[in-house]
Amino acid sequence: MKRELVVVLASGGMDSAVTTAIANQTSRLAFLHLNYGQRTAERELQAFKELAEFYQVEKKLVINVDHLSQIGGSSLTDTDIAIAQADLESTEIPTSYVPFRNANLLAIATSWAEVISATKIFLGAVEEDSSGYPDCRREFYDAFQKVIDAGTKPSTQIEIVTPIITLKKYEIVLKGRELGVPFELTWSCYQHEDTACGVCDSCGFRLRGFEKAGLQDPIEYAERPVYQ
Amino acid sequence: MKRELVVVLASGGMDSAVTTAIANQTSRLAFLHLNYGQRTAERELQAFKELAEFYQVEKKLVINVDHLSQIGGSSLTDTDIAIAQADLESTEIPTSYVPFRNANLLAIATSWAEVISATKIFLGAVEEDSSGYPDCRREFYDAFQKVIDAGTKPSTQIEIVTPIITLKKYEIVLKGRELGVPFELTWSCYQHEDTACGVCDSCGFRLRGFEKAGLQDPIEYAERPVYQ
Repeated sequence: MKRELVVVLASGGMDSAVTTAIANQTSRLAFLHLNYGQRTAERELQAFKELAEFYQVEKKLVINVDHLSQIGGSSLTDTDIAIAQADLESTEIPTSYVPFRNANLLAIATSWAEVISATKIFLGAVEEDSSGYPDCRREFYDAFQKVIDAGTKPSTQIEIVTPIITLKKYEIVLKGRELGVPFELTWSCYQHEDTACGVCDSCGFRLRGFEKAGLQDPIEYAERPVYQ
Repeated sequence: MKRELVVVLASGGMDSAVTTAIANQTSRLAFLHLNYGQRTAERELQAFKELAEFYQVEKKLVINVDHLSQIGGSSLTDTDIAIAQADLESTEIPTSYVPFRNANLLAIATSWAEVISATKIFLGAVEEDSSGYPDCRREFYDAFQKVIDAGTKPSTQIEIVTPIITLKKYEIVLKGRELGVPFELTWSCYQHEDTACGVCDSCGFRLRGFEKAGLQDPIEYAERPVYQ
């Protein structure tokens, strides 16, 4: 029997879908989606809703986080900054970095978890094989855990869980297949909402992941370059 | 010459006004106000604007943080929960606690600071002589500092500064008088927007602070009980 209620930060992408499948094995799900003014917000919300239905989640909350686009500084939220083409080997922080985004999302998730008495927050952060955002590293989540411990009521116990943080993208694909994740419902493209572009960083990592896993990505792409 | 640009979290209350006066001694000010759906939002915004003008701040940003009232769980954002009468000796966390509010506000402040290249975030947190919110303690801010260090770009250096955190309320009043803080422009009441109620926790701490400092609070009160 699944006793524990947990919050899952669900963007609608494949990483959070696999994370959802993992959380779903042991827990009741409270599904949280944050629309932070990213270009593909509508498409991601659709993916979130379809995944919520697929996993028959117990609670669902969609929050508009307008302030991240109001603050700007990222190609994801500011249409004056172009979305860069995929450069999977770059060690620079890309223009798609939304300043301190994940702290904002985790703060919201913690507020909700505290109010609904959820005991964990699951999120699909990936440290390696991702765009190198500073707020996707384990060190960041370890630090945030201490903020939760210090900044919530003494009776509140909320643990951050990042079950795929050390996995490579192809391992996430394989894990997802093992758990029956409906990849056809997920959305990863940073740029388009109709057909995935295939050339932004996010499409690049995803396509390479499926390629290395020896599986076919079930969604459609405008272009389908082969990434090494 | 004031070189450094700093973000000041300015609620419009007396603590943030005194913090502003301290920051203003050495730095250029970027003034940030968060409207999180609290009952007295409009009156606080007015105080923020008048203080921004008084201090001739260089940048000003007002953000509507709708999600805290959407999440609920506090008498400040949920009109179904009554505002409690002042109980300045209570050791319980009061119903006015907005779950994990200050982490949400700090995350926003950090995003903004990173985008505008501000080097510090000043905020008027007070550890003692306040309502005992878990996210007002020094331990919480120390932990959040580590999240900033881990979760922003390597080139970003942002320091949290809480210059009045160890002061008692009457010491804050005295500090404010020393620095010429226009207390008549500030607003603290949790309950009313026209005349301060005098009986909520926030009015209680404020009135006791002025009382102990031997000064007259220049704002009007509907009731003016004497707090020991």
